[in-house]
Amino acid sequence: MPKYNPKKLYFLLEFNKDNILIVGISILVLMSSDEGFRELEKLRYEVGEVTREILKLIAKRRQLVSKIADVKKKFNVSVVDRFLESRILSELTSFSESLGLEREFTRRLLSIIISDSVKLQEEKILKTEVIGLREIFYKAIELERSGKKIIRMEVGEPDFPVPDSVVEEVCRALREGKTRYTDFAGIRELREALAKHINDLHGTDLKPSNILITAGGVMAIYIAIQVLSNLGDEVLVPEPAWPLYKQIAEHLGRRYIPVRTKIEDKWILRKEQLIENLTESSRLLILNYPNNPTGKALTLSELKDIALEARERNITVISDEVYSEYFFNGGKAPSIMDVLDDGYVVVGSFSKTWAMTGFRIGYIIAEEKIIEKALKILGYMVTCLPEFIQRGALKALEEKEYVKKNVEEVKKRVEHVLLKLSRCRYVEVVPPDGAFYLFPKIKIKDFDSSSFALKLLEEKNVSIAPGSSFGEYRDHVRISAVKSLGELDVGVETFIQALEENYAER
Amino acid sequence: MPKYNPKKLYFLLEFNKDNILIVGISILVLMSSDEGFRELEKLRYEVGEVTREILKLIAKRRQLVSKIADVKKKFNVSVVDRFLESRILSELTSFSESLGLEREFTRRLLSIIISDSVKLQEEKILKTEVIGLREIFYKAIELERSGKKIIRMEVGEPDFPVPDSVVEEVCRALREGKTRYTDFAGIRELREALAKHINDLHGTDLKPSNILITAGGVMAIYIAIQVLSNLGDEVLVPEPAWPLYKQIAEHLGRRYIPVRTKIEDKWILRKEQLIENLTESSRLLILNYPNNPTGKALTLSELKDIALEARERNITVISDEVYSEYFFNGGKAPSIMDVLDDGYVVVGSFSKTWAMTGFRIGYIIAEEKIIEKALKILGYMVTCLPEFIQRGALKALEEKEYVKKNVEEVKKRVEHVLLKLSRCRYVEVVPPDGAFYLFPKIKIKDFDSSSFALKLLEEKNVSIAPGSSFGEYRDHVRISAVKSLGELDVGVETFIQALEENYAER
Repeated sequence: MPKYNPKKLYFLLEFNKDNILIVGISILVLMSSDEGFRELEKLRYEVGEVTREILKLIAKRRQLVSKIADVKKKFNVSVVDRFLESRILSELTSFSESLGLEREFTRRLLSIIISDSVKLQEEKILKTEVIGLREIFYKAIELERSGKKIIRMEVGEPDFPVPDSVVEEVCRALREGKTRYTDFAGIRELREALAKHINDLHGTDLKPSNILITAGGVMAIYIAIQVLSNLGDEVLVPEPAWPLYKQIAEHLGRRYIPVRTKIEDKWILRKEQLIENLTESSRLLILNYPNNPTGKALTLSELKDIALEARERNITVISDEVYSEYFFNGGKAPSIMDVLDDGYVVVGSFSKTWAMTGFRIGYIIAEEKIIEKALKILGYMVTCLPEFIQRGALKALEEKEYVKKNVEEVKKRVEHVLLKLSRCRYVEVVPPDGAFYLFPKIKIKDFDSSSFALKLLEEKNVSIAPGSSFGEYRDHVRISAVKSLGELDVGVETFIQALEENYAER
Repeated sequence: MPKYNPKKLYFLLEFNKDNILIVGISILVLMSSDEGFRELEKLRYEVGEVTREILKLIAKRRQLVSKIADVKKKFNVSVVDRFLESRILSELTSFSESLGLEREFTRRLLSIIISDSVKLQEEKILKTEVIGLREIFYKAIELERSGKKIIRMEVGEPDFPVPDSVVEEVCRALREGKTRYTDFAGIRELREALAKHINDLHGTDLKPSNILITAGGVMAIYIAIQVLSNLGDEVLVPEPAWPLYKQIAEHLGRRYIPVRTKIEDKWILRKEQLIENLTESSRLLILNYPNNPTGKALTLSELKDIALEARERNITVISDEVYSEYFFNGGKAPSIMDVLDDGYVVVGSFSKTWAMTGFRIGYIIAEEKIIEKALKILGYMVTCLPEFIQRGALKALEEKEYVKKNVEEVKKRVEHVLLKLSRCRYVEVVPPDGAFYLFPKIKIKDFDSSSFALKLLEEKNVSIAPGSSFGEYRDHVRISAVKSLGELDVGVETFIQALEENYAER
């Protein structure tokens, strides 16, 4: 008798219960390829055996890793040695190539096995919960809804109105029926105007095909990470950093690697810091200058140093330049486009420059090949962007005076807050080069920005962002200078008062 | 001497080249935990050895799979036996649980190994490239731009204008400054109004917390798949189907499993078809009734049959009901909400009902727990939706007469096209219950819808969607009845003429 697959026969019987003839035929077919099925059965059995062996070894490996965690704990060694891990990964990848396995396949496989190891080791360490930016944001809104007047210095959103011309252009487009599906990459006029805008500013040679319109900067980041890296790859981010980089990278199965910069270094990111954090698995570097939350802008030569090093080492730079217009040192903020010819992706947005946060419109600048891949992913997420919003953005690009005026205003506010802060003995702060934030260090022993921010909000109706939202900076806070000078006055004074009250006795 | 990690020392030397003292200290630390490091080194060596063994076995497994592919090819057996594969997966998962490995971990691991096997086997089969819906769409736009008048029957977009009241409400909101970040889940008023709208229609008890506003139905699908399934899980979709389900599922690393329905069965999806396609890896079923492209709506009892079976077997149903208002049989289209109390996610959109395709606004209805997870992912993708657009959507919900009138109009058009088509001897078509498409079968031997659609567009200026875009339906085409009766007249006549011309002689 042939060794047929019994499950197959079972299904045939069930599907065709009204027609017994079919069953007969199917047995016949099975018999005619008897030899083949016998061979298949044998091979499948072997595959099963091998797979069981693999799983046994993985379980054994897991026990060894668990022992390593115990030893590390006993001798107080940090959980993850990325360099060792990456060296091992690289050795194993070469080894598996010599076995005829594909590089990408091995990397995916090992990244799953290794991330399980990391998880296993981390389970043996206690973690402290911190109150994040989002919690403060929600709490502030909740209090406002209950009727309280809150001075909102936690939020990263300009307070000035969108240009009238933008609003009217959107209305015009709506009435003209620009309410249909449109070019998936963004309307051509907007991509042309953006290309020109940026070419004029940076002497680049961008074409519309180098630009993809996205639903805001966050979508640009979400897409760029997917296009430029694989599961398990490392994404390096200088900290302090906007918390979404970490959340998005980890959501996408990438490994987030913070590169810590310090107020003592005036927030400068040095090439050496990049180098010492690189491993074989490093793939991306996300720069964000002018920076949220520090306001630091790298100088052209600082940026060049980093960018060239990254290119040298095959690290693609995602340069998040959403604050580029908010630059206080004269001229334009240094851009990755000023120092590299390729190998980068720029993320831009209309949110900060034209106060268009609620329009959800931003863009990606990159080589055509990258834009093509990004476009595909954008299609899966949102099909295309509303045309009437894009018409508004096109109009915004003309509003150069509006931008100049607002940047001046923000600069004045930042300087005002800076002056007030620098008079407080508990505060150390670096004068921002741009953006609209200040990120002072609070020179109080064991200062905990999370609990302080919550208390300040609940007891004094002033909201600030805790430093711990941006990395290991629990002795820092972020203050947004996007309220009127009057509001900022009260807000900052209340903040300083609270510091004095809470810590004067210490 | 202690067995320290040489790489570590190297880095210390490099980082601190100005400060030789640090190096001395680090050696001291290493020496003091000499015992620990020795143990670590030993364990790490063992982990390396075990990992190499694992890779060797995986390479061996790969060779066996390659042999299986050869045998299958020789004996003309289809590449993938999902049932066998799933049974093996399930057995192996149990086996690995007995080894102390976590279920989810094993499943991720094996899904990578198995999908590599599938890829390996599929490489040995030739695939034919087909011209898809998107290509026709772009080609049609290109021809229009070159000045040609194209009768667009390929696109799934209503031709009637957005209600004036919606446009004016959006403009009002814009002028009132509703241009800021807003509730991440969607403004409360819209979620309340939607909940009421749906509760009135289906007798449900939805609360605003059961609703998440998304940037269109496609984003709703993209998020729902992520929330409700894991890498490697199977997503079952009755075909013919909107091609994006497949593209999104595969982009997200899920396995897309088509469940083929047939014109001979009047496009009914039977419970048995579902059952015979289920494996241990099946997690999701995406229903889309009224259906794109067939116009079929399941009856309440047909839907109930499927839904209960799915729940019984722990399959979550994503019910894409974006065409729910386009229902021609009187009353309302049967909804998953009419037959299940929980265990489903509904995807809705303002695009089709209110011709708001270019507004990019849709929603997810689900249990609160699912909405919370979905909200997180939405935040990574787009932060929140524009408030002014949501205000427009809120207004749209009041436009009940508008909807009624347009549905009547579309019904008339569909019936008109139906009548014309049924007079053609080459065409077989099932009268649609809803949506705005017709999906006729072309009864011509070896009819190839892709090349026919391209030829029709290029030579006769009429665009239709090839059936092969919706699954294995190369002998079908999709005609959208969202143009004026006059245009449809010309379009359908040209289509029929082209059939006659091309195939009359056969």
